Amino acid sequence: MGGEVIAEDEVVVDIGLKDLSKKLEEFAKARDWEKYHSPRNLLLAMVGEVGELSEIFQWRGEVDKGLPNWEESDKEHLGEELSDVLLYLIRLADMCGIDLGQAATKKIGKNAIKYPPKAF
Amino acid sequence: MGGEVIAEDEVVVDIGLKDLSKKLEEFAKARDWEKYHSPRNLLLAMVGEVGELSEIFQWRGEVDKGLPNWEESDKEHLGEELSDVLLYLIRLADMCGIDLGQAATKKIGKNAIKYPPKAF
Amino acid sequence: MGGEVIAEDEVVVDIGLKDLSKKLEEFAKARDWEKYHSPRNLLLAMVGEVGELSEIFQWRGEVDKGLPNWEESDKEHLGEELSDVLLYLIRLADMCGIDLGQAATKKIGKNAIKYPPKAF
Amino acid sequence: MGGEVIAEDEVVVDIGLKDLSKKLEEFAKARDWEKYHSPRNLLLAMVGEVGELSEIFQWRGEVDKGLPNWEESDKEHLGEELSDVLLYLIRLADMCGIDLGQAATKKIGKNAIKYPPKAF
Repeated sequence: MGGEVIAEDEVVVDIGLKDLSKKLEEFAKARDWEKYHSPRNLLLAMVGEVGELSEIFQWRGEVDKGLPNWEESDKEHLGEELSDVLLYLIRLADMCGIDLGQAATKKIGKNAIKYPPKAF
Repeated sequence: MGGEVIAEDEVVVDIGLKDLSKKLEEFAKARDWEKYHSPRNLLLAMVGEVGELSEIFQWRGEVDKGLPNWEESDKEHLGEELSDVLLYLIRLADMCGIDLGQAATKKIGKNAIKYPPKAF
Repeated sequence: MGGEVIAEDEVVVDIGLKDLSKKLEEFAKARDWEKYHSPRNLLLAMVGEVGELSEIFQWRGEVDKGLPNWEESDKEHLGEELSDVLLYLIRLADMCGIDLGQAATKKIGKNAIKYPPKAF
Repeated sequence: MGGEVIAEDEVVVDIGLKDLSKKLEEFAKARDWEKYHSPRNLLLAMVGEVGELSEIFQWRGEVDKGLPNWEESDKEHLGEELSDVLLYLIRLADMCGIDLGQAATKKIGKNAIKYPPKAF
């Protein structure tokens, strides 16, 4: 037939923001943590995680794309800190009643108008 | 018939992290901005957006869940700043070669072991 | 004689920014750390400390002035994190060739013009 | 006599933390702003300023000490943002009842023990 052939088990799963949001809600409920999840508490918790993320990069000078010389354990750690920022951000949006996926899609559209593509 | 009727086109779309990531890549390519997107540049840009997000909350004292007394324009602004943090975070993860959705899912699992659900 | 009597050893010392700056320079020299103290390294280190400072406040909800119900050890910890932010900030200013004390004094003056005192 | 001659009016003034703290207190009182200066409000305001500081550095890649190629206006702007972080930090310490100069001096001493000077 021509064209690309994709093997049956090659399914790329795209994790959704609502899916993560729901997981975080269940997580908080199961631990009776909802009472701590006020907007400003979550914001400060996120700032805390941004700090931990920055610590990974602080003494390295400039870092190449793809992190070519990093230890696997450092990349693992980086993935965890990036995740912590993401998870608090999603939870903060939820506690503010903001649909983050929708807002982000809208923001990309707004940016596209503000910064028109370059003519090459 | 009774009960709620949901129109056929009322599909709840869950925006995926890979989908946003791809949009950001195309956005950067179309503007020749890839050269600016080094990991530490993106990290500092994200810190800048975290600052703008904090400014929204800075003089308000504690804020109730759902932001009951906020102006619609303030919520709109909040959605944009939350989005800016998210978009730089996704782009940073990409430039580091980290699959953010996968990392976040893994982190939730790790947290679930670290903090077992409360027995009620 | 009347009036207050101040014991001879009750001298209130006002620690100066230049004094701290000089101490930090000697500290870095004595450890051969000057090579790490590039502006962006120091900025990210400061963001890391801002994160640790935020962690102290993250789950507490609103906090009263003077921290009336805090444990002495928590106040001690807070003093250390506030100091870490200050010390990296001073060092960053130095490495950028900025006289922080002078800049801050100037900024207060500028703010005083921007926000005139309230008439009561 | 040889050697350097320093004119009598060439006094290097070292701005003190308590001096700045007092200026900020008077500033807030004169504008009836004390009611806004709760610890978490001030912390978030400081995070906002850290964001503005980061924005100055975000797209520049690594930056040399002394900022050799920076425009004078960019250095001026940098001095202002560094000051904004400092001023909110001092005010935050005050509202928490922490003597920042004393705490910072103590922290340098603690660090000196934790990280002994390098033997060359």
